[in-house]
Amino acid sequence: MSSLSKVRPGRPRLIPDHGAGTPREQVLEAAARLFTSKGFAATSTREIAEAVGIRQASLYYHFAGKDEILAALLATTVRPTQMMVEEIVALVPPERIETALCLLALVDIDTLARVPHNVGVLYQLPDVVSATNLDYASFRQAHSELTDAYADLGAQLATRHGVTAPPPTLGSMLIQQVEGVITLRADGNDVDSDHAIEIAGGCLRLCGCDQAEATQAIGRATALQNQLRLGASAVTPCPTPVR
Amino acid sequence: MSSLSKVRPGRPRLIPDHGAGTPREQVLEAAARLFTSKGFAATSTREIAEAVGIRQASLYYHFAGKDEILAALLATTVRPTQMMVEEIVALVPPERIETALCLLALVDIDTLARVPHNVGVLYQLPDVVSATNLDYASFRQAHSELTDAYADLGAQLATRHGVTAPPPTLGSMLIQQVEGVITLRADGNDVDSDHAIEIAGGCLRLCGCDQAEATQAIGRATALQNQLRLGASAVTPCPTPVR
Repeated sequence: MSSLSKVRPGRPRLIPDHGAGTPREQVLEAAARLFTSKGFAATSTREIAEAVGIRQASLYYHFAGKDEILAALLATTVRPTQMMVEEIVALVPPERIETALCLLALVDIDTLARVPHNVGVLYQLPDVVSATNLDYASFRQAHSELTDAYADLGAQLATRHGVTAPPPTLGSMLIQQVEGVITLRADGNDVDSDHAIEIAGGCLRLCGCDQAEATQAIGRATALQNQLRLGASAVTPCPTPVR
Repeated sequence: MSSLSKVRPGRPRLIPDHGAGTPREQVLEAAARLFTSKGFAATSTREIAEAVGIRQASLYYHFAGKDEILAALLATTVRPTQMMVEEIVALVPPERIETALCLLALVDIDTLARVPHNVGVLYQLPDVVSATNLDYASFRQAHSELTDAYADLGAQLATRHGVTAPPPTLGSMLIQQVEGVITLRADGNDVDSDHAIEIAGGCLRLCGCDQAEATQAIGRATALQNQLRLGASAVTPCPTPVR
């Protein structure tokens, strides 16, 4: 195949692709890089298409437009964690609510630490927030549901420790603490397991746990997280504590 | 004076001003509004000048350019708190470190709650971060010094409670919690004294305080903050606790 064939109409790939992934994934990767370096408003779909090496028309085959690409990117910061909430709650007995909260925090930290180009920095972008379209609303909804999950687990734990913060406030404080991962990455840090343990421990202390209880919960939650990574079938539920 | 005189050369004000403030303050106000609604890169100095009702040349009399305006705006989110750190530490005896930390958090929350147009949302803007000029570096330096103040007070309190988080990590976690004010405002909330008390209480729990100790520290710190607002001369130092 000659190199000329790459620019032939009907063969939309203009330059060799940058490696892994489906065209859709490559569009998301390039858009994440451009949005987080130049800004959302300043990036055109043409630039995204050029970065991937496809025609603009091909990009529109995968996404209705820039807003839909943004919505798909923002979803990657919330969905993977949100999809685990039920499993986390099912896995840990209610008496071990501190382990459930800790596991939720660890899973969320992992999601935010892995998301390409730290797209969480786009949450508060003026040009993103002012794009009050349905796509952005669906992200806000997902983010709000995840905050509710923190509020629910956090409030149960806080009540046990005599901490009186209203559940919605506590939920916001917990997700704010976890989203410190976005700040750490924006400041140029690689987020490692030490960061994860410190942030998860902070979440437990926000709900009134002391250092000993936090340390124990982190140990249990880390073990469960490792099992979750190996696939749901391999997970041994956390034993119910002897009372 | 005829209305025509307003457009006469040498009288740069093109339209009536929007009320309070010096021309410099009006430039900052308009820039804050435009940067946080349209984005930094998408806003020109001409637009800022037009919004204030002055000529672009007059804007350059006050600021060297857009970067300097941004730096001045970012400084308003950090400087007022930073300027109080020494006073806070001097006001509270070392035995009452929880009150000092709580007062620092309350002062910082107040700063972030008041700053016009919630310009803290600009911290992580890609087009701001990529503008790696000296102006932005001086903001990062100020922010880093404030984080150090949190780390210093927080680590002393944490040690007392057997919390083992490394001081720089604890400092980042504390300022992250306080900067939840930016998120609250970005989500459309007015930040009131209930929010302030909850966030300050969260900071204390992050350092290992229980609810009782946090409540007591919040009471003392709130009283000191009210005195600080009345002016330094009216402040009665926090009494040294009887041991």
